[in-house]
Amino acid sequence: MSYFDVASAAPLHPVARQALHAALDEGWADPSRLYREGRRARMLLDAARETAAEAVGCRADELVFTPSGTASVHTAVAGALAARRRVGQHVVVSAVEHSAVLHSAAAHERHGGSVSEVGVERSGAVPAGAFREALRADTALACLQSANHEVGTVQPVEEAADACRAAGVPLFVDAAQSLAWGPVPGAWSLLAGSAHKWGGPAGVGLLAVRKGVRFAPQGPGDERESGRAPGFENIPGIVAAAASLRAVRAEAAAEAARLRGLTDLLRARLPRLVPDVEVVGDPVRRLPHLLTFSCLYVDGESLLHGLDRAGFSVSSGSSCTSSTLTPSHVLRAMGVVSEGNVRVSLPLGTPESEVERFLDVLPGVVREVRDRLGAPAAPAPGDADAVTVDALGLTCPQPVIELARAIGRVRAGGTVTVTADDEVAAVDIPAWCFTQGHTYLGAVPGADGAVSYRVRRGGAA
Amino acid sequence: MSYFDVASAAPLHPVARQALHAALDEGWADPSRLYREGRRARMLLDAARETAAEAVGCRADELVFTPSGTASVHTAVAGALAARRRVGQHVVVSAVEHSAVLHSAAAHERHGGSVSEVGVERSGAVPAGAFREALRADTALACLQSANHEVGTVQPVEEAADACRAAGVPLFVDAAQSLAWGPVPGAWSLLAGSAHKWGGPAGVGLLAVRKGVRFAPQGPGDERESGRAPGFENIPGIVAAAASLRAVRAEAAAEAARLRGLTDLLRARLPRLVPDVEVVGDPVRRLPHLLTFSCLYVDGESLLHGLDRAGFSVSSGSSCTSSTLTPSHVLRAMGVVSEGNVRVSLPLGTPESEVERFLDVLPGVVREVRDRLGAPAAPAPGDADAVTVDALGLTCPQPVIELARAIGRVRAGGTVTVTADDEVAAVDIPAWCFTQGHTYLGAVPGADGAVSYRVRRGGAA
Repeated sequence: MSYFDVASAAPLHPVARQALHAALDEGWADPSRLYREGRRARMLLDAARETAAEAVGCRADELVFTPSGTASVHTAVAGALAARRRVGQHVVVSAVEHSAVLHSAAAHERHGGSVSEVGVERSGAVPAGAFREALRADTALACLQSANHEVGTVQPVEEAADACRAAGVPLFVDAAQSLAWGPVPGAWSLLAGSAHKWGGPAGVGLLAVRKGVRFAPQGPGDERESGRAPGFENIPGIVAAAASLRAVRAEAAAEAARLRGLTDLLRARLPRLVPDVEVVGDPVRRLPHLLTFSCLYVDGESLLHGLDRAGFSVSSGSSCTSSTLTPSHVLRAMGVVSEGNVRVSLPLGTPESEVERFLDVLPGVVREVRDRLGAPAAPAPGDADAVTVDALGLTCPQPVIELARAIGRVRAGGTVTVTADDEVAAVDIPAWCFTQGHTYLGAVPGADGAVSYRVRRGGAA
Repeated sequence: MSYFDVASAAPLHPVARQALHAALDEGWADPSRLYREGRRARMLLDAARETAAEAVGCRADELVFTPSGTASVHTAVAGALAARRRVGQHVVVSAVEHSAVLHSAAAHERHGGSVSEVGVERSGAVPAGAFREALRADTALACLQSANHEVGTVQPVEEAADACRAAGVPLFVDAAQSLAWGPVPGAWSLLAGSAHKWGGPAGVGLLAVRKGVRFAPQGPGDERESGRAPGFENIPGIVAAAASLRAVRAEAAAEAARLRGLTDLLRARLPRLVPDVEVVGDPVRRLPHLLTFSCLYVDGESLLHGLDRAGFSVSSGSSCTSSTLTPSHVLRAMGVVSEGNVRVSLPLGTPESEVERFLDVLPGVVREVRDRLGAPAAPAPGDADAVTVDALGLTCPQPVIELARAIGRVRAGGTVTVTADDEVAAVDIPAWCFTQGHTYLGAVPGADGAVSYRVRRGGAA
């Protein structure tokens, strides 16, 4: 069994388990009580806060523990916005933020705020210049992840923080994906993290708010955690979270180098082993342990099931593997193919042999799905000027497969028009054109959600 | 060492520890993932939900897990109010609800809602009739605890639920203190619980919302836990919470009878062992394991320190032991003395010998504090018609001690006027008069927060 989805949740680190165990005996009492069990709990909580703050790179009194990374994000965004209500109601986010950030922004919009989404390059990187330009006089908060959770691209947080400082806007950084690897550089104002991403237990998030940053916690008052995280403190979880963060940091440099070697191996060998595969995300500025690729003419669910049967646990940004039936907003914002998408994120200590076995297994799994779906071979030279394809009622990846088949029937410069009602086609047809060297001419909406996509065989005329 | 503060937090139940341990191995993955680690986590989560729902007395699909009892309360109140915004903005709460409920109500008030607080009897019981009468045509939600957290009085939830049903108002029950002992009876609509109160781990709350009850979760959207509890599920904690709830229920009937015997013992013997002590809370309709009493002429902090040194961990509703410097709102609403307050709440399995030792130790601890503070003996027959006492600048319990000394200087029917600026005096002087058989004549506010309290020696003329 190879679990390659540490970006969703990491197995518990041995240090976390040990610390949790000890703190279940010593840290179950109410830390606000004066008796010895309470004082002991308070000491554990204080020590954990010191440890976590050191790893985050902030003061202990700037850091509180919340019940989850999501809670940290929701609290950070709501608290920062409320405190700067008089400055304005405008929020800047990148288009590839985690849904916790985007949902916070959407909630703000429902209550009368406005949101600017900064688009990304094809690598998933947020251009620092575009981020800076999105800041306005009435911007109350800007949000930028430290690294993307789906494709691993590291974002220019330091530059964004400088731009925000110059504009007098606080910067909130969702550091959930990168905190295991090191502190977030730069003059950020607020930061969120999530313990189960680094091998800590579920149920613990971090929220740092730098001194001097205006912050007004929302919701009913509660005296715990400086009024920023209501409810009885989960001290055993907190102790385990802090101890494991320190532990993973101790091995971070060595493991980062080793795992980067393994993801480089995947990056180099995948395109040779699997036809029509695209590795996505920035090849250099990226998280060391994470690699994402999309396989054309394959549906994500079949791919994941095939890999699961072969003993590999990975995740996917393809539409058919999510509960919403829409493709990942990250892949969509990047303009890359969402079908047959696979994210590999390696736990600490993953042996090279497991990655080698993955490379052995993957081509067969992809081939099997493609054979079943009737995926096209490389297109023949065709002779028609124009071909029309009806893909109504077909779902991802079938409309793209129909297009790929039809492209073999037209001459270079000829056009294919595909009519589809699967909304994923709007992402995948343009992206497919890009990867295959064809020209996407545009889409014309029709009745009942049907859209006609026009493609010219070959590059721009 | 005797830990007698299970109403704050219970030590981890052995079954919780065992279940947590197993679920750390099996339940760390994301339950929304399709691979085997995710499916395993989902199975654990589903099973825990079934177990917890059975204990609560609701359907599994009516119950979600939250990060804490406080989170459950905040979510319940906000979600119920938002869903009934068109009906009205009026909320009914009892005056002795947990601060999580009162803070939710206060937040609602800040946003334009109105709140009616139903007062309590001297026993801490909410009169069902008064609760019913507080319901109005525009009442969106009514809130009543199953049992009080400070004095153990069991509330008439069933009658309140009937009244609410008749009025078409949903009833929210904070069941944090009673869930270990059994399901909450009656046709409640929403219910909250907290695992660390019954021996489960910190970091897990329960929220039940009956089918058919309108509910609109507030805050940023999140797909986990039916959209009612954002953030990655703490499955090991949840599994431990559910398993331990089932375990404590299995022993609940026997332990309730045994612990009730021990609290009855305290109730009977305390007044004989310690002069000027008042046991508060309903003597019959009460939680089996909890007993609260107030010792006149003693400050809570000294008492708690003395008991801690003697190996007893208890809590107190006295002002001087809380961070806010105001006495417990529960004791204030009941009109009982708040000085020298002690809450004893016994863990499952507490041996009788520990309670006997408590009874051995307490009189000496109280006597020591009283000697140091110069507490008065029984008042001598005095001869003055009226005495004036300046207690400005003195804090609890000194103003009451000054009053008790002065009462010995006036004849029966004579008056004592105490001027004090400690706000606790407003609670404790009338309550002291009640317990000592004197007549509280009222208070006249003066400058700079000074208040003059008038007391007549003896009963009403």
